[in-house]
This record gives sequence, structure tokens and C-alpha cells, in this order.
Amino acid sequence: MVDQKANPHFLNSFINPASIAFFGANEQIPDNMGALQALTLIDNGYLGQIYPIHPRLDTVFGYKAYKSIKDIPNKVDLAKLILPKRYVPQILEECGQCGVKHIIIVTAGYREVNDKDSQDEIMAIINKYDLKVLGPNCIGMLNTHGYLLDSSAEFVINTTVQMYNEPPGTVSIASQSGTFVSHSFMLLAERDLHLSRGFSLGNELIIDLCDCLEFFEQDQQTEVILLYIEEIKRGRRFYELAKRISSKKPIVVLYPGGTSGGSKAISSHTGSMAGNDEIHNAVFNQSGIIRADSVEELFDIASILAKLIPTDSIPKGDRIAIMTNSGGPGAMMADATSRAKLTLPPLGEKLKLKLGKLLPPTAQATNPLDLTFSLNPAQFHYTIPRMYAKSSDFDVLICYGAFGPSFFRFNEFGTSFMNQEKSKEKLSQWLELVESSIESAKRIVAKFKFPIINVIFMGLDEPVFSLLNKSDFPTFKMPHQAIAAIKKVIGYGKYRHKILNLQNLTKKEIKTD
Amino acid sequence: MVDQKANPHFLNSFINPASIAFFGANEQIPDNMGALQALTLIDNGYLGQIYPIHPRLDTVFGYKAYKSIKDIPNKVDLAKLILPKRYVPQILEECGQCGVKHIIIVTAGYREVNDKDSQDEIMAIINKYDLKVLGPNCIGMLNTHGYLLDSSAEFVINTTVQMYNEPPGTVSIASQSGTFVSHSFMLLAERDLHLSRGFSLGNELIIDLCDCLEFFEQDQQTEVILLYIEEIKRGRRFYELAKRISSKKPIVVLYPGGTSGGSKAISSHTGSMAGNDEIHNAVFNQSGIIRADSVEELFDIASILAKLIPTDSIPKGDRIAIMTNSGGPGAMMADATSRAKLTLPPLGEKLKLKLGKLLPPTAQATNPLDLTFSLNPAQFHYTIPRMYAKSSDFDVLICYGAFGPSFFRFNEFGTSFMNQEKSKEKLSQWLELVESSIESAKRIVAKFKFPIINVIFMGLDEPVFSLLNKSDFPTFKMPHQAIAAIKKVIGYGKYRHKILNLQNLTKKEIKTD
Repeated sequence: MVDQKANPHFLNSFINPASIAFFGANEQIPDNMGALQALTLIDNGYLGQIYPIHPRLDTVFGYKAYKSIKDIPNKVDLAKLILPKRYVPQILEECGQCGVKHIIIVTAGYREVNDKDSQDEIMAIINKYDLKVLGPNCIGMLNTHGYLLDSSAEFVINTTVQMYNEPPGTVSIASQSGTFVSHSFMLLAERDLHLSRGFSLGNELIIDLCDCLEFFEQDQQTEVILLYIEEIKRGRRFYELAKRISSKKPIVVLYPGGTSGGSKAISSHTGSMAGNDEIHNAVFNQSGIIRADSVEELFDIASILAKLIPTDSIPKGDRIAIMTNSGGPGAMMADATSRAKLTLPPLGEKLKLKLGKLLPPTAQATNPLDLTFSLNPAQFHYTIPRMYAKSSDFDVLICYGAFGPSFFRFNEFGTSFMNQEKSKEKLSQWLELVESSIESAKRIVAKFKFPIINVIFMGLDEPVFSLLNKSDFPTFKMPHQAIAAIKKVIGYGKYRHKILNLQNLTKKEIKTD
Repeated sequence: MVDQKANPHFLNSFINPASIAFFGANEQIPDNMGALQALTLIDNGYLGQIYPIHPRLDTVFGYKAYKSIKDIPNKVDLAKLILPKRYVPQILEECGQCGVKHIIIVTAGYREVNDKDSQDEIMAIINKYDLKVLGPNCIGMLNTHGYLLDSSAEFVINTTVQMYNEPPGTVSIASQSGTFVSHSFMLLAERDLHLSRGFSLGNELIIDLCDCLEFFEQDQQTEVILLYIEEIKRGRRFYELAKRISSKKPIVVLYPGGTSGGSKAISSHTGSMAGNDEIHNAVFNQSGIIRADSVEELFDIASILAKLIPTDSIPKGDRIAIMTNSGGPGAMMADATSRAKLTLPPLGEKLKLKLGKLLPPTAQATNPLDLTFSLNPAQFHYTIPRMYAKSSDFDVLICYGAFGPSFFRFNEFGTSFMNQEKSKEKLSQWLELVESSIESAKRIVAKFKFPIINVIFMGLDEPVFSLLNKSDFPTFKMPHQAIAAIKKVIGYGKYRHKILNLQNLTKKEIKTD
């Protein structure tokens, strides 16, 4: 991978501009898009130069405003246009004349409303000056690893409309919908995942999905790639790139174009022609792309991948083990496993014997394994999962029912009892045991490359939910969520291992030659 | 419906006991179930008498403890047993001798581990004294509308293991899994819904689903009924009851028994024999029961029902209108609508003309309707939805993209700008407009009986999410969640309207006679 500061791909100039000219910036909060985006860029900590351009204003949010890009005394790396369509051609012309090559056009009203004339008009100027354009009809881009060449500071460069207040991450997205860039990081954060780069592609007049794939391939800050696709413009190139990249960096897509409803929506959104579901599925399958069935699943799959790839524990098969401390959720997980056509094999004889010695009299050594109610974190997080990992009987373990501090949230009387020295000490010992057991369980994953997934109804309200996620155990609120996502990851795992094996064989052959 | 205090059903004695004898209560926090449940009962505000029974302790959490139930000087309404199995027969015997008829047995280790002898032993005592037993192998019950006969105070009676700190509600659950009673209220609260009664049925040795259905039918505090089912013991009775109740109070079930995985899990959980999926579906369909496909869907469906039933706006057909201010989520909703086999008809000519006059040049009057980015709450929440409702072209409107205060959450610089007098005033006017538009939109639902559902990616982090839910507009985070749940509600709506029409016809015939 290429060092970020030396990445030669032209998209690097978009995500790391040293200066931005902002056409349409003003202070009309709350209901003007130009104002919102300008404030977001400033307030999210952009450290480069900002040049608002406005025909009447002298300053915008304290920044000196210019009447024209021609008046800016310094070099402009990126221009952002967010103003009525009638002004766009002249501004593009001026950008071209001033040597500003990288341009984001937020302004809409082209192909998506069948206005071919306006599109042809701007296309002529783009060609004349060889401009690189993101959009039109997009929301901009977001880079959580921003830098300046002469500084070691990292900062967020956010030209979308929603503040990014999360840590920098490793998941990148290219999207033909702006919302999946400007809102996706909240859905990632719930999974203790964070965004790296986000490109809102809009109508893809110039820059398209393939450009982003090329960039992500080289980008050392991208480990998992998400795509929201309404239309694949360069089919063959897309397929070749995906096939080349997917076994190294997984690609997960959301594609609503395969149904009549989705197609109708798409044509009024970006003016794209949606395609046949089967053909798209074939392209995705053969190039190792994972297709998510819903917005939630996109982020669920990403969450599993981002956590299992660093430990090389992507499953190779579909033998699911289920462990639970409550029968109902266990049954829901087992039912979902069957409905997803994953296998739920019985415990091997050796594992069965070992588990049998450990279980309380109310429990039986079967798969699913119902521990009945248990508050023994060492057993739940470490001892039993280690037995599963060691047995080689299964490819994935899914556990329901980790308990953490929120199990002991009381009102007045309970709190005063829990605050007594003896209770406090016992509880804090127990909480330490929860934490150390989860810490130890990381070794199971590292040693046996065995993935362990958790389900906890309480979600982020329960600190252990976040602790598990942060410790790289993918953790979900709902049984069907975990099962649906792991099913997709297993499909990818089979593909990935086949490709990696082929590559290893080829390497050996070359050695032997 | 029967007044709560005069409800003659025997389960009323379980949910409103004036005194509870607690076998197995102790202070061994954090990892003893008896201690946890005793503390939960006390700390959740039970106002009746608590009599801990323990062979050695003098007090438990400040309550005088007794060596035996025979030592308690006053009448005991309910006994709760949570202690090793070997003590259960003797305690049941003593309860019987003392005239304590209502008993919750939390203790496990009977049918679910194939211990028929132990079960026969307690069954003989139960029969001898005609005891009413909840369990064994259950978690207890939860009543958020508790009362004492001589007082007007309402309080929570919680004999489960997790504190209930939500308002009292109208959704009741009977469950063959304790977790769906003790954890369900958190999943309800996320939807601004709250629990009324919860019964954990365990092995259903005596009290079963049918008893609960009978009770819920008469219960004025129950509007929506949820069931978690592993086995239906009295099939014919269950069917008759469900058929009688479902058109008045909707019944939503979760049944994991239809697959090999689910069946395996169930047999080790409650020892039940799971049944054939098709037969169960037939029973559910013909009795008007809604079957949820996942835990999440159970609560999603409940959330729509609890909000639409009071306004009599349960949809009668499946014509879906989609409105969005962002193309991507709109396309995902349209795609999900098609995949769910719901219809997405074009706009009628009249509605198309009316909308056309209102829309910005970047938008087209189609279904789905993409407003493109818009921060006009009056139009989004009121003007446009009212046009849809008035047109009669659709049965349901689903909207993506309500904005609220979290859209304006900034860091230091942004916050200081927003705190300036002028910005503050403009934002507060805008927020008032959001609130008043939602308030006005309630009139659309009331007048046209037209359901409006919202989808907002941000969930509870965005105050308008909660505001919409509290204003009885079912609101979801994810497109597929909204579509899957409304599909099930539409199925129920068709059934309900058919039954209600038949009943009206019958009434007319009787009048004519």
C-alpha cells in the first residue's frame, strides 16, 4: 500500500486539499444547505485555508469572503459549488481559467430531472479544462484522516452536512446517495466502527465507483469497502477491479435496483437506469462482492469483517455453534440459523463430554447449548468458548446473554445496598472478572482463528456490549441480525479462502519452476 | 372489560398479591438469583407485604425473615420459590397446608431435563391442594399497574430479575421464555411503548398460554398481546380464544418451533415438542394472529398496532406511498416494498398535479416522491401527508428524513454561532414549527384514518424520533424494519376489517329481524 501523503491517485487531491474555495457559503442557519455545509467544514476542524465566495458578503463565519475565485490571492486545491444551477457554468469556466481542477458540485437538477441541455453545457466546460468533478447532485466528501503536507496534525475534512464527532476509522464508503455518506458514521459508531473516507458520487458525471475502488485499493486507511450502488456505469472495469480487490479488502454493496420499486425510485434520484437483479447478483458473486439485503445488514456485515479480518478469523465454513444463558433467545437464534440454511451440527463426542462435566444439572450438553441462567463470566466468555474453538467441530460460535454492569442498575434502596462496602467490593470483583475474561477470550480468537459473535438485547445501554465490540467480538442486539450477517460473511469467507489458496498454489508453482 | 380491582380471573391474584412469601430470598448479590429477584421486587416499589423465608437468616434486605411459611402471622397471597429442587415438594406441601394457593416456581430441572419423577412428585401435591402454579422453570411475572385494595397508589410488582423503570403501558406479554418478560420492556421503550403485564410461563405445568389469553381478553390495561410460544399445549382452546380476541385486541406471536434448529433448542429449554411450521401458520392465520419473523419484528409490529389502534387507522389495503428527502433511503424503502410484495402504485392524476405545484425544480411528482433535500417541516409533516391522505390513492404513507435538533449539534465554534441571539431565535422558531407540524399531523390521522410511518436513521439520538413515536406516528430507524412490520399489520388489517364488517352485518340482521 502507498503512503497516504504520497498516494498518487487523483482522489487524494479531493480528500486532502490544502485550500477550499466555497461557492454558496453563507450564514443562513438553520435552513440553507450552503450555510450548513460551511459551518460543518469549519466546526469539524479543517486546518487548511477556506475561501468563501459570495457576491455580497464580506465575511462568512469570520472568514474573508471573495466576490470571485479570481480574487483569491493563493492557490485553490478544491472548489465546492452549492448554489443555483444557473450560476454553475460560469463558475466552472472561472475555475478552469484559474487552474482549479478539482471540483465538487452539490447543485442538482441535471440528468435526474432529464435536463440534458444543462448537463451538456457543463460537460463542455469540464472537457475544455479537463476538470475532475465529484457530482453533481452529491453531498461532498468526508475524510477522517485529513492532513497538511507541512504538519503532523490529523483532522477531519467534512464537506457533508452532518458533524463527524467520532474517532477516525478504517471503513470507507463510496455512495450514489449522499445520506449514506453523511449519516453512515452514526450507524458505524453503534457497532464501535468508524469511517475512514466517504465519497458521495451523485450523478457520476466524471468521478465514479471505479475511481473510488482504485483509490480504496491503494489506500492504507481503508480496510473494508462499502458501496451504495444505483447504477454501475463501467461494468467491465468495475468487475475487474472488484475481483482484484475483494479478496484483500472485502467489498460490501447495497443495491436497490433489482425490483420495480427500487428502479422507479432510482430513476428520479440520480437518473440512473436500474438493472436486472440476477445479472447484478452474478457480477457481485463472481467478483467476491458481498451484497447486503438492507441498510442495517450493510453495517452489520461491515462490523463482522472489520473485526475478524485483523485476527484472520473469517470463517471458512457454515457449522454454527450456539451458546445461550436463556432458552428463548437461544431458540430464536437456532431457528434463524435453520431458516438461513446454515448448519447446526451436534456437538462432537469429546466436546460433549467436556461440556457435560462443567454444566449445572439444569442444562444439557447439546447444540444449541443452553447454560440456563448463569452469571459466571469466566465460563461464559472464556472456558466454554475455548472448548468450542479447540474442538474444531464448528466454524463460528454465537453467544447470547453476556451480563455487565447494567444488570445491577437499581433505584434508591438497591443503590444504597450496592453502595455498602461489601457489595461494592463483590460487584467490582465480578466486573473485573467480566473484563479479564473478555480480554482472555481475545487469545482464543488469535490462537484458533475462531470467530465468536455475541448477541445482547440491551445494545449500547449495556457497557459490556461496547466492551465486546471494542475487543473485536462482533456484537449485535438481535438474533436475526447476527445470523443474517454471519451468513453473508461465511459466503465471502469461502470465496476468500479459495482465492487465497489459489494464490498460494500459484506462488508455490512459481517457486518450483 | 372488567374493572381491574374486580377482575375475577384467577391470574389477578398473581399480578396483584397483597403479600408475597419469598422462598430463597437472600442478600448474596451479585450472583444469586434469589437475592437479585428479592432486591428487584423491593426496589421496584412493591407496596404489599414481603415475607422472606430462609432457614438461617433473620432479615433479608431489612425485612424480617421466617424459618417457615407456617411462622408467618398473616395471610399470604402469593408464594415464590427460587431454591434447590430438593426443597420444592416439602414447601409446596406446607403452602397447601397453610392455604397458600398461588405459587410461582422459578426452580428448574423438571420436564426440560427429562426428570419425570420430580415432576410427578410436585404434580401430586399441586393436585392434592388444587394449587395454581406459574412455572416451574420460569422467571416470574411483572405488573406495571399494581395496586392494593385499600389504597389508590399504583406501583410496579416485579418478580423478575431486571428493574422496570419505565411508565406503565398497554402491551402485555405471555412467554415461554423468561427473558422475553424480563428484557422486553427495554425493546418496547425504544419504540416509546410500555409494558402492562408480563407472565413468564416456564414449563406450563398448570398455568398456560390459554389462561393468559383469557386474562388479557378481560384486562382493561391490555391493548396489544404478545406471545412467545415454544409449544401450544391446548391447541383447540388456544385457537378458539385467539379467534375470539384477535379482532379486538391484536395478538402477535414469536414461534421458533418450525425449523430443525428451533426444535432442538426448544426441547432442551422447556422440554416442549415443537410442531410443524405449516400447521402453526395455518392456526395463526385462521385465528387472526400475526406471526413475527424475528424478535425485532415482534416489537416493531406491536409498535405500529399500539399507535394505530387508538386512532382506528389500521390499514385496509397494501397501496404504499413513499416520501423521502433523500434518494438513497427512498430507493431502499421502495426496493423493500417490492420485495415484500406490497404495491407501490403511481400517484393519481389529481394528487400528481397538486404535488407538482409544490415541489422544487429538483424534484418530480412520482411515487416514490423524492423531495430532494428539504428543511421545511410544515410541508414534510403536514401539507404533503395531508394531500396523500385526502387523495384516497394510498393505504399507508412511509416518510424518510424528518429533521430535528440533532441536525444542528455542533462543536465549539458552531455552538458559539448557534448561541448568538439571531441564530437562537431562528432555530427555536424552526423547532417550534417542527413540533407544531407534527401536532397538526395528528389531525390528518384522526380525520382520514390514514397511517403515517416515519423512518429516521438516527433513532433515539434524535429527539424528533421520540416526538413522532410519542405522537403516535410509528417511527423506525431502518427502512426494511418499517416495511416488514407494516406488511404484517396490513395482513392483520385485512382480517380485522373482514371480521368487523361481518359483525356489523350480523348486528344489522338482528336489528332487521
